Amino acid sequence: MTPKMEEFIARFRPETPCLLFDLDLLADNYRRLAAALPMAEIYYAVKANPAAPVLQTLATLGSNFDAASLAEIDRCLAAGADASRIAFGNTIKKQSDIAAAFALGIRVFTFDCAEELEKLAIAAPGASVICRIFVDNDGARWPLGAKFGCAAGAASDLLVKAQGSGLAPLGVAFHVGSQQTDLASWDMAIGQAAMIFTELRERGIELATLNIGGGVPVAYAQEVPEEAAAITAIQQSLARHFGNRMPAIMAEPGRCLAATAGMVRSEVVLATQRDGQDVRWVYLDIGKFGGLAETIDEAIQYPIVTERDGGNPVPTVLAGPTCDGADVLYQIAGYQLPAELGAGDWVEFRHAGAYTASYSSVGFNGFGPLKEYYL
Amino acid sequence: MTPKMEEFIARFRPETPCLLFDLDLLADNYRRLAAALPMAEIYYAVKANPAAPVLQTLATLGSNFDAASLAEIDRCLAAGADASRIAFGNTIKKQSDIAAAFALGIRVFTFDCAEELEKLAIAAPGASVICRIFVDNDGARWPLGAKFGCAAGAASDLLVKAQGSGLAPLGVAFHVGSQQTDLASWDMAIGQAAMIFTELRERGIELATLNIGGGVPVAYAQEVPEEAAAITAIQQSLARHFGNRMPAIMAEPGRCLAATAGMVRSEVVLATQRDGQDVRWVYLDIGKFGGLAETIDEAIQYPIVTERDGGNPVPTVLAGPTCDGADVLYQIAGYQLPAELGAGDWVEFRHAGAYTASYSSVGFNGFGPLKEYYL
Repeated sequence: MTPKMEEFIARFRPETPCLLFDLDLLADNYRRLAAALPMAEIYYAVKANPAAPVLQTLATLGSNFDAASLAEIDRCLAAGADASRIAFGNTIKKQSDIAAAFALGIRVFTFDCAEELEKLAIAAPGASVICRIFVDNDGARWPLGAKFGCAAGAASDLLVKAQGSGLAPLGVAFHVGSQQTDLASWDMAIGQAAMIFTELRERGIELATLNIGGGVPVAYAQEVPEEAAAITAIQQSLARHFGNRMPAIMAEPGRCLAATAGMVRSEVVLATQRDGQDVRWVYLDIGKFGGLAETIDEAIQYPIVTERDGGNPVPTVLAGPTCDGADVLYQIAGYQLPAELGAGDWVEFRHAGAYTASYSSVGFNGFGPLKEYYL
Repeated sequence: MTPKMEEFIARFRPETPCLLFDLDLLADNYRRLAAALPMAEIYYAVKANPAAPVLQTLATLGSNFDAASLAEIDRCLAAGADASRIAFGNTIKKQSDIAAAFALGIRVFTFDCAEELEKLAIAAPGASVICRIFVDNDGARWPLGAKFGCAAGAASDLLVKAQGSGLAPLGVAFHVGSQQTDLASWDMAIGQAAMIFTELRERGIELATLNIGGGVPVAYAQEVPEEAAAITAIQQSLARHFGNRMPAIMAEPGRCLAATAGMVRSEVVLATQRDGQDVRWVYLDIGKFGGLAETIDEAIQYPIVTERDGGNPVPTVLAGPTCDGADVLYQIAGYQLPAELGAGDWVEFRHAGAYTASYSSVGFNGFGPLKEYYL
């Protein structure tokens, strides 16, 4: 909660549920991260929060942008970012979208298989390409699974093939998984990437860039390593594996720039203790389908503040307002909320500036998308 | 696939992903179900598909409506349904929404605890109320968990309390869980409800209505009991437990009216066989956040038809187009799709008319909501 948010709530009493987002905090987060990673170019992961004020703020600060789709590229351009500062980072792209992005001036694309290279060679001739490798996501609270990335052993052949098809092999990318808690993950991934740089040097290709993805954890309700510790670990691994042949570094933070700048304010719709149950049920006006999708499997556990804090904490199940049984936020995470909490009281989800509003459904059960206020 | 859908695709070549929905099939489903359940009033579960043409079609056919929110009530009224044919079925309601619904003429509300009764007594004085009890959801592919319903033993006290606070106790409701495969579930639930009718008769209150919810299964790719078998089981249980004191029956079908009337058409964005993996990855332009949310935990397994059917089927993982690792549709369900399937080929999800479009995100990763065509 920031003074700007407090003032906004006091003055406008916004209808809940809503996202309040302090752009000054976002700017602070950007400056802190840029200072901590002086050797890296920051490519903000637009998907974390693609709101125009967020993109405008970051564009003004000099950020680059990692776009997941043509629509995200359009949003970055509309926010004032030059095409040269936007990378098309999704490995899964329609050929028509590649062509449209290329026509808009986008020149850096990520891929992870031969089929995607073929599309790039046709639709983005001469563009720079980065090969994404699969790396271990153990330790990530929101892992990426095996959906993205070629086997590390396949990368150098793919990059040679890229050159053969008229593309410019730029580098290697990986992602250790979102909300990564095991700092050793980066070391292993950076080590694998460094081997690919060496292999390609031996084949006559000098890669210029390493894209270290995102994954720096945010302190929600669960314990995670400090951001500074994660960054130190990354820097040490880069030095260890690349020594004095340090490539240009791209970093793709999303969550750690946007999350702490926002909070979701909601209202209790119903609270009840049912016969024979040892937990209290608290139903809010926001749930999994209204913007809190990252509570799937209770993966992300937000710090929660309520109007009745200071009261008597009791084991509580938190649920959303829809008629869907899957729309339960926390049942096993062990939240304890005040027994005094009742209908009409506010409940705030802190650090909810990333991966919330853009996830909300168009209107499941008739509940519209999350309202957003950028302050 | 219906002739109308085929003609629409041939003539307009709609951009994918999109939902094609044949209103004639919806009408057929309604007429079949109404004929099979002559003793029941059908209250269509609006959340299954709240599109205006769906509501208009059903209103014309004489359906009633089960609304989950004030917004759904507004949609039903706009579609031509009289307020007397709409029940506010969500047990979780803001008091202001109850008051607004009451002002619109809604007179039937569901509740499951004393706290909700208090709101109803204030905001909907004199309205008819139905007490929802918790029943076993074992056997449901999309269970409702413990989110809804009081203990059966608590219902009669609550209904007496309702009368004491100026509300009119109308009946008992339950829901055996969506896509229920165990036909014995209804018998147990109907038996519990009948006991509450008896208890209340002994306390001087004659309940008029039993709301048997939804849950009649749709034949997706997984084997389920026939709809007719489910309906026969329900009728037999009603006769067994209520005998010649049969109350009015409300039924709340959603899925079994809308699902088979629609299909989602998508396009392969990327298909690849990765080194060292024994499955092929097929990435589509629709995923969990674009409308196929019910693939969470692979709960609903749609029948899939592709442009290359007849080719060589191989084990396939199906994933969505976003940069999110959670956006994988089927990894363990065991789908086999043709090895020939490649970028640009169409893939259809059949029986996707319910619980799809309204679930889609406003624009996660920049991918907009599912386009919908009602034919």
